[in-house]
Amino acid sequence: MGSDSDADVMSDACAALDELGVAYEMKVSSAHRSPERTHEIISEAERNGAAVFIAGAGMAAHLPGVVASFTTKPVIGVPLAGSALQGLDALLAVVQMPPGIPVATVAIGGARNAGILAAQMIGVATEAVDLRLKEARQKMSEGVVERSKKVERSTR
Amino acid sequence: MGSDSDADVMSDACAALDELGVAYEMKVSSAHRSPERTHEIISEAERNGAAVFIAGAGMAAHLPGVVASFTTKPVIGVPLAGSALQGLDALLAVVQMPPGIPVATVAIGGARNAGILAAQMIGVATEAVDLRLKEARQKMSEGVVERSKKVERSTR
Amino acid sequence: MGSDSDADVMSDACAALDELGVAYEMKVSSAHRSPERTHEIISEAERNGAAVFIAGAGMAAHLPGVVASFTTKPVIGVPLAGSALQGLDALLAVVQMPPGIPVATVAIGGARNAGILAAQMIGVATEAVDLRLKEARQKMSEGVVERSKKVERSTR
Amino acid sequence: MGSDSDADVMSDACAALDELGVAYEMKVSSAHRSPERTHEIISEAERNGAAVFIAGAGMAAHLPGVVASFTTKPVIGVPLAGSALQGLDALLAVVQMPPGIPVATVAIGGARNAGILAAQMIGVATEAVDLRLKEARQKMSEGVVERSKKVERSTR
Amino acid sequence: MGSDSDADVMSDACAALDELGVAYEMKVSSAHRSPERTHEIISEAERNGAAVFIAGAGMAAHLPGVVASFTTKPVIGVPLAGSALQGLDALLAVVQMPPGIPVATVAIGGARNAGILAAQMIGVATEAVDLRLKEARQKMSEGVVERSKKVERSTR
Amino acid sequence: MGSDSDADVMSDACAALDELGVAYEMKVSSAHRSPERTHEIISEAERNGAAVFIAGAGMAAHLPGVVASFTTKPVIGVPLAGSALQGLDALLAVVQMPPGIPVATVAIGGARNAGILAAQMIGVATEAVDLRLKEARQKMSEGVVERSKKVERSTR
Amino acid sequence: MGSDSDADVMSDACAALDELGVAYEMKVSSAHRSPERTHEIISEAERNGAAVFIAGAGMAAHLPGVVASFTTKPVIGVPLAGSALQGLDALLAVVQMPPGIPVATVAIGGARNAGILAAQMIGVATEAVDLRLKEARQKMSEGVVERSKKVERSTR
Amino acid sequence: MGSDSDADVMSDACAALDELGVAYEMKVSSAHRSPERTHEIISEAERNGAAVFIAGAGMAAHLPGVVASFTTKPVIGVPLAGSALQGLDALLAVVQMPPGIPVATVAIGGARNAGILAAQMIGVATEAVDLRLKEARQKMSEGVVERSKKVERSTR
Repeated sequence: MGSDSDADVMSDACAALDELGVAYEMKVSSAHRSPERTHEIISEAERNGAAVFIAGAGMAAHLPGVVASFTTKPVIGVPLAGSALQGLDALLAVVQMPPGIPVATVAIGGARNAGILAAQMIGVATEAVDLRLKEARQKMSEGVVERSKKVERSTR
Repeated sequence: MGSDSDADVMSDACAALDELGVAYEMKVSSAHRSPERTHEIISEAERNGAAVFIAGAGMAAHLPGVVASFTTKPVIGVPLAGSALQGLDALLAVVQMPPGIPVATVAIGGARNAGILAAQMIGVATEAVDLRLKEARQKMSEGVVERSKKVERSTR
Repeated sequence: MGSDSDADVMSDACAALDELGVAYEMKVSSAHRSPERTHEIISEAERNGAAVFIAGAGMAAHLPGVVASFTTKPVIGVPLAGSALQGLDALLAVVQMPPGIPVATVAIGGARNAGILAAQMIGVATEAVDLRLKEARQKMSEGVVERSKKVERSTR
Repeated sequence: MGSDSDADVMSDACAALDELGVAYEMKVSSAHRSPERTHEIISEAERNGAAVFIAGAGMAAHLPGVVASFTTKPVIGVPLAGSALQGLDALLAVVQMPPGIPVATVAIGGARNAGILAAQMIGVATEAVDLRLKEARQKMSEGVVERSKKVERSTR
Repeated sequence: MGSDSDADVMSDACAALDELGVAYEMKVSSAHRSPERTHEIISEAERNGAAVFIAGAGMAAHLPGVVASFTTKPVIGVPLAGSALQGLDALLAVVQMPPGIPVATVAIGGARNAGILAAQMIGVATEAVDLRLKEARQKMSEGVVERSKKVERSTR
Repeated sequence: MGSDSDADVMSDACAALDELGVAYEMKVSSAHRSPERTHEIISEAERNGAAVFIAGAGMAAHLPGVVASFTTKPVIGVPLAGSALQGLDALLAVVQMPPGIPVATVAIGGARNAGILAAQMIGVATEAVDLRLKEARQKMSEGVVERSKKVERSTR
Repeated sequence: MGSDSDADVMSDACAALDELGVAYEMKVSSAHRSPERTHEIISEAERNGAAVFIAGAGMAAHLPGVVASFTTKPVIGVPLAGSALQGLDALLAVVQMPPGIPVATVAIGGARNAGILAAQMIGVATEAVDLRLKEARQKMSEGVVERSKKVERSTR
Repeated sequence: MGSDSDADVMSDACAALDELGVAYEMKVSSAHRSPERTHEIISEAERNGAAVFIAGAGMAAHLPGVVASFTTKPVIGVPLAGSALQGLDALLAVVQMPPGIPVATVAIGGARNAGILAAQMIGVATEAVDLRLKEARQKMSEGVVERSKKVERSTR
């Protein structure tokens, strides 16, 4: 992510990865303030076997696209709110990538979904992760019944 | 994809997958007009070993989210222009998924990038695909030099 | 509605239906987290004689469209604010339905109007409801005079 | 509808009503240029047993809301494109109705869905119409299979 | 204005008219909840010699356009914030009037400017008002110097 | 207006003023390219008895606001489309004036309404103009009946 | 800047200029309320050797463009939030300048970047300033490492 | 610029620089497809004495920001239309730079203004360029009179 002030939102991705049993590293590096460091972090991570990258940034959010320009691994982009335009700027700056360099974009502030999506990508070839994803989905589906009971109302 | 009229744009994804040596099937099914068929296609594809889904749709583009609700495989969403709002509606309807069910969203009309992203996900575990991705990236980078030569200008 | 956190806003619809003497049931089910449950709720409600459905959801608000794909009864969609984009995403995801599957969309957060609209649909064939609608309209119109008196000012 | 120039789009509603066997009248009257005529048309139509109103308008599209202020029957609003802002102005002017006077809004230019939605409202109490809606839905669902065949592609 | 809850903002117009010595009446009437009352208020005001109308409303803000449909006097529209879309809906619903029925639109929440604009229109034929406008402008211009002194800073 | 390329749209205002019997002068001057000329034109026009100004401009449309800063006569602003953003930029740059200096804004490209609005302002004190406005309104209202006949359709 | 209420945000530009050792003067003058004063301030500043102008304004933010119309020195525009539209209006009113009169626009509320950009322009010909810019950049880049350490996390 | 397809628009900048007697080099390099080449071009240009950079790009337009991350010289960004969102995406991706790395943004497609702005920056220290800018401004101002004559109209 581009700044330590993004850590609160981005740690939702860590939580999801923890729940789904996927190992990860979280670091701060800016597309603009530290372009070399960003390049080095990506290259080193690839050498260490990183399979997927998650990059979160706000405003003219270039970090996900810049990360994607350094690797052919899938890159997940999380547009972050916080600017006057409440994340619309970040969303467009992340998702509207030109042909050739995709960024897998999730919702504004959608760090949790970024974690789940990364696990889904890992799960393509790692059955244990795919299984945990299926269990989590099942549990989430059952949770809807609980949530419903709290607020159900009927006049029939 | 939701309609045969989307085939022109969505076949860009096929072209990318062809170039990167990834097998695929392309079908039409609507989230709203044929929800059962959509469910069946996803289930059958999963049984046949589908690793990634790409769904393209326009307007209130629900297809990618609906596909994602039926599987824990990664789902790539392609918002399609064509409505009065030129795809802004489709973009928001695809990318702004609630926590729990991510859709990996690419640019409006970005079917080519959807194909490349799918290959990147496959490439996580399939070295041959990763290699072809690296070659394609290299070629694309070299192509920039050619493109530059066509229009370079200098007054120094 | 898609989540129990939507109950506060959506209960405005219940209040309107209570005032207009229309029976209803309120439940939580998600388009994405519990697609089967959503289908079952709609089917069962239809068997029990439900005449109209109201569905409220936020962000990439697919619930109204998904409900509409399961029934030919009229479906009223309530886009909910709460995301970074303050409901613009939900509005477009609810109202911009493709030809064939309409959703009768009300304002962002307009659950009260959803209730009134449902009563209007029932009132087409149920005179008692139509009468209560006419009385409520009359009362609302008279209320404007009261509201005016509180703030009227004149320098003539 | 507010102008005869809207007739091309709005006749999509007639086509849907024709298919579904619902009788209708189509007229031009403007919320701003002919407010009295608009009021009279609505009153007379109600006396003649009109069950549902469909109103289409562009730009600061007040017609649906103005019609809704004259009746307690359900009013369907069709925002029309054609302005510089391509219908976003019409959409917001139609859908964002204040509490008390709902307008059942469909997509920008969505006159066909307005016709189907009107039929759904009639169908609540008229079984023959409900049946035709179910048949039309069935046919639409089957049409997806035809459309798919035209563009299916597979490399497996 | 459409609701007594708009009185806080709209009284800025009264303040401006008081300062510029222009008589006025302020009332609440809704375009949708009390269309007849709205018509009557305009007709009566015209009979009493009203020269200009100011109408403020939020959301699908039809009041200014509806007022303009009842009179050939100039109508000033004040779009009000307060909805999820923060007044963008009201702005478009007020300003995008179709040819034939203009509304003189001011900024979102710009009730003070509505008062000044009304005075400017009166001032076209009433020299005393024009003079007070010139004095107020002069004073405003001088006020800028005062405001500047509070925050001026120089390192030269 | 800011450029001779705006003359096509802006001459709609002339047409309306011609129909309503209001004298006018039309000139080109830019807020940015010729600020002094703009100031002089306004001052000279005021000396010659100009009662109302109409200013049309596109993109960062400053002309109406700049004209308003030079006079206390009412200024009508016409935002012009033609930029990539299709006039949304011009609309916001014209209508969102800060407190103290109003611009009476009409729709994007709404030059005809600007002419009518100017006539309405003149009509406040000039009965002959007010009369012509009332006749034009009457004619417009009757025209709706003609327009309706062209497209009326009924299946009852 | 257009108002003393903008001083809080705009003093970020002063802070940046202080850090980079560039002399400046900060004053309030409005494009609309005090157009002559604005012209005089620019002319006097130019005579005193001002090399770059920074202008910040909100809503229909004309000040930067108006300043640019009075000088051929580079003008930096800072769109300010604070209106209902949260600065989108100011952004478009500042950046969308017509051909011939550029305004170098920074982010909404981006006064700090305006200061840095001004220093960069000065630095083109003043080596001492260019050096301080390079040092500041270096420091900023190193700061990223510190920020990262605060929030780094790893499960590998 | 990011692609040879941008050359048509971007050559407007060359034309302006030619007119103002400023030397330049125009090249294609992509932020994403050729990040290393982009870095090298900037570094080499700086060694050769480049004083200002102009970068144009469309969609998620990262090129200007990426260029700015490699230099402390002023960088002018030109957002380019051409995407479904007609340049709004590019505008936000260029202008909303985070604190520390400014990009001097011009209008969507505003390459001519980018050239003029670059000349203004050079002109700060190069009197010959400043003189040519003043002459060009004078000529532009006089051109307004010519343009006016073509379309002036008066009924007085």
